[in-house]
Amino acid sequence: MKISDSVIRRLPRYYRQLGELLLEDIHKISSKELAKKMSLTASQIRQDFNNFGEFGQQGYGYNVDLLRQEIAKILNLHEKKSTILIGAGNLGTTIAAHIDFESLGFHLSAIFDKNEKLTGTLVAGVPITHTDQLKEFCENNAPEAAILCIPKDASTELVKNLTSYGVNSFWNFSAYDLHVDYPQATVENVYLGDSLMALSFKTQQQDSKINHN
Amino acid sequence: MKISDSVIRRLPRYYRQLGELLLEDIHKISSKELAKKMSLTASQIRQDFNNFGEFGQQGYGYNVDLLRQEIAKILNLHEKKSTILIGAGNLGTTIAAHIDFESLGFHLSAIFDKNEKLTGTLVAGVPITHTDQLKEFCENNAPEAAILCIPKDASTELVKNLTSYGVNSFWNFSAYDLHVDYPQATVENVYLGDSLMALSFKTQQQDSKINHN
Repeated sequence: MKISDSVIRRLPRYYRQLGELLLEDIHKISSKELAKKMSLTASQIRQDFNNFGEFGQQGYGYNVDLLRQEIAKILNLHEKKSTILIGAGNLGTTIAAHIDFESLGFHLSAIFDKNEKLTGTLVAGVPITHTDQLKEFCENNAPEAAILCIPKDASTELVKNLTSYGVNSFWNFSAYDLHVDYPQATVENVYLGDSLMALSFKTQQQDSKINHN
Repeated sequence: MKISDSVIRRLPRYYRQLGELLLEDIHKISSKELAKKMSLTASQIRQDFNNFGEFGQQGYGYNVDLLRQEIAKILNLHEKKSTILIGAGNLGTTIAAHIDFESLGFHLSAIFDKNEKLTGTLVAGVPITHTDQLKEFCENNAPEAAILCIPKDASTELVKNLTSYGVNSFWNFSAYDLHVDYPQATVENVYLGDSLMALSFKTQQQDSKINHN
């Protein structure tokens, strides 16, 4: 079954929101209340969940604990997919340090950088390996995913190698539009600048609202 | 006019895509071709642009240069909004160093951190100021936006202060759900973990597709 991209985007939001509810000791919630908290509509929420089965009983609301577990299953968070991170610069080390991979369905198996001076340095408890070892590592450990924290120019050759070593999923911070060359790859592109441009737009809307009042 | 969130999300993508086309020396494109490059439909693209006026001539396609300029205007990228970054840790310094603020509609005016040892250190050419100076800085410089690169717990008090100093736009990396306490604030939340969970979901879909073939 093909799940639309908008639904895929909302699943992690549901998962986070339900986690927040549990922290507040809330164990039951109606689609209406959940919708309000998430600036969605109740019918949108019901439609989203209907893609995956029956999670609530009409008129009784959702069991927050169970629903969260179901969404974790849908997101496949329990299966810790082996992933490698490429590029231990500013961005790469921040990602390695800030992201709680295990809770998000991944295990950070290795970090690679071409800078020999960094080899062996620990980042988030993982020693940096030289990029020369990438092929051997992939042959021995078969990582499923790679996190690209390198510039666009360096990515073309690297992705070519990684796909030939069997890596098919990419968390892509590199601004290299992978999909054009590798339509079969599974890719999540992160363009932080897009979010800032959206803020620029919304800030202007806010300003013009204030000026018109 | 109220622009839907999905349209706001797509505007930066259009802007980026049109920039890519110019780099390839492509100056005219049909909605159909643009749709294909972006995994959208031509009618969706036409509908999106119709929110803002007339940008193409039926049957003649879009002028890439002009369309990109129009989208830059819509996104208000030319007006460099003064912004401050709070938290010069790993994440904050990465954001300061990696983001090209000027091209995205902002000017990074100051970086604040409560760690006195960091005061005066340059990050991306901007000296770190102690958080004690925050109020005075805001009174003198009236920044419009703040980038929150601090933990959730530290954010509650800080956002209270910032809003009282007149800051109303937030690029929020803090996982503090601002909107609950400040419904009037303009906020872009960045949850990098959501993107990784989406990758987890899509990786599973890819695996099950391969297994069923």
